[in-house]
Amino acid sequence: MMNDFKMHLKEYVDFFEDNLPQFLPKAEPHQEVLSESVTYCITDGGKRIRPVLVLEFCRLFCGDYKKAMPFAAAIEMIHSYSLAHDDLPCMDDDDMRRGKPSCHKKYGEANALLAGDALLTLAFDTIASKTDFSDISPLQAIRAAGVLAEKAGVYGMIGGQVIDLQSEGKKADVEILKLMDSKKTSALIAAACQMGCIVGGADEADIALAGEYAEKIGLAFQIVDDILDVKGDAKLLGKPVGSDSENDKSTYVSLLGLEQSQRLVDDLTNEAIEILNRFEGSEFLRELTLFLAKRDY
Amino acid sequence: MMNDFKMHLKEYVDFFEDNLPQFLPKAEPHQEVLSESVTYCITDGGKRIRPVLVLEFCRLFCGDYKKAMPFAAAIEMIHSYSLAHDDLPCMDDDDMRRGKPSCHKKYGEANALLAGDALLTLAFDTIASKTDFSDISPLQAIRAAGVLAEKAGVYGMIGGQVIDLQSEGKKADVEILKLMDSKKTSALIAAACQMGCIVGGADEADIALAGEYAEKIGLAFQIVDDILDVKGDAKLLGKPVGSDSENDKSTYVSLLGLEQSQRLVDDLTNEAIEILNRFEGSEFLRELTLFLAKRDY
Repeated sequence: MMNDFKMHLKEYVDFFEDNLPQFLPKAEPHQEVLSESVTYCITDGGKRIRPVLVLEFCRLFCGDYKKAMPFAAAIEMIHSYSLAHDDLPCMDDDDMRRGKPSCHKKYGEANALLAGDALLTLAFDTIASKTDFSDISPLQAIRAAGVLAEKAGVYGMIGGQVIDLQSEGKKADVEILKLMDSKKTSALIAAACQMGCIVGGADEADIALAGEYAEKIGLAFQIVDDILDVKGDAKLLGKPVGSDSENDKSTYVSLLGLEQSQRLVDDLTNEAIEILNRFEGSEFLRELTLFLAKRDY
Repeated sequence: MMNDFKMHLKEYVDFFEDNLPQFLPKAEPHQEVLSESVTYCITDGGKRIRPVLVLEFCRLFCGDYKKAMPFAAAIEMIHSYSLAHDDLPCMDDDDMRRGKPSCHKKYGEANALLAGDALLTLAFDTIASKTDFSDISPLQAIRAAGVLAEKAGVYGMIGGQVIDLQSEGKKADVEILKLMDSKKTSALIAAACQMGCIVGGADEADIALAGEYAEKIGLAFQIVDDILDVKGDAKLLGKPVGSDSENDKSTYVSLLGLEQSQRLVDDLTNEAIEILNRFEGSEFLRELTLFLAKRDY
């Protein structure tokens, strides 16, 4: 039997999955492959953590999560584009993603590049053209778009990717790892939390707090990833384990050991929950934070 | 001596070049190459036609062009990202761009991919965070961002790229070429004209007319490109000529011949000017339209 948290999570994920298709492109003559590759990248994919965070933070501040759907779709489009580009031969050259061929394996490199570009562009198109302005003001929408662009851009996710590239083949230290993951992972999670806040009408102090919370769980998320790469189950993960050590990549586990890495996850999780205690009605986020720290996939 | 048109054009281009740097990313620790590659892609580049169109259409409707600068920067960021990605080995695999090494030749494939992603993201960040909302309403800004995303996306520029890919090695007919160029080239020019209109406060009818005008000059622009690839001067163009026929690519010239292609350019130019006649004070745009049709680079 599912507990309340699991039911609540399922409600969000189901709502997201049910509504996502209306935001995806239709097939157009002579370019059918594009709508197909875009849909491929964002369908059947992953845990939908970022959209869930958008929806729940919106609900937290205004009681209604449904109006945040365009923003939930937008963040997942950004996340999906980043995976499609990250898997390309000139980047990580990964053949598999979530238990199925990566986009470039399925559609070829050029189409995977363009599918990523299309998803990135579609994220902003979605916010601009699918927001219900009777419910969300244009200023809220443009501010949310700005947060998304900032956190996904040069000072956020893409910056993290570049740091990752630059440190290839070098021995990174924990400080560089943290800087990289703060940009590569936490930034987009912060965009999710903060977009939810903005659309839900939160004040500046709460928007900032949500960003701090995201910083903690983003880092914890990345460390758990590293731990799972060592002791996870390839079947549950949908990807091979041991690839970090095979690629001689510096990770929290390789630098700190399993035990200390796990302690860091626990500390970050506790700090995240302390931040949540300042939000009334944040029981679901508390459970989600624990769920992410204890996940085995 | 410069005539009025050339002076006016120079004023716009100088204004754009002088103000662009404030919109470009600063170097950040461990990721210096990113701000460098982004700046490389957008600096010393091209004719700045799209930003000029943004600025002039804004001036046409409100008398002031300076407030449209963030939108002019955004459209050039989109244009520059599309060139960086287009030059990648998995796309056109071009080593030279505007007389200098293409981004991937200079910084490597992964960095060129990320520079493009960064420019695309930065375009929307610029609109969201650099617009002066005392002068432009949030609704105008989000609408302009929506036009940009739509015209740059699945149904616009990226769609055109996919049609281009799909028609590789096949004999395209003129209808497919027109569809492709309408998306690949005209769409972004339409975004430039229409963003200028929106920011300048034009009404719906004028925004639509500006789109029709863009369709004409975009197509003419592409046909002139094909003509220059046959009879242009490589030195003026900053790239080798004859590459289309070398690659056995269907072009207006290969399908219609030089003479009929030139006639098509003349017809489109006349139609574009007829549309302009419906805008008061459009002398500069008229001259620009003729200038683009007669360009030799």
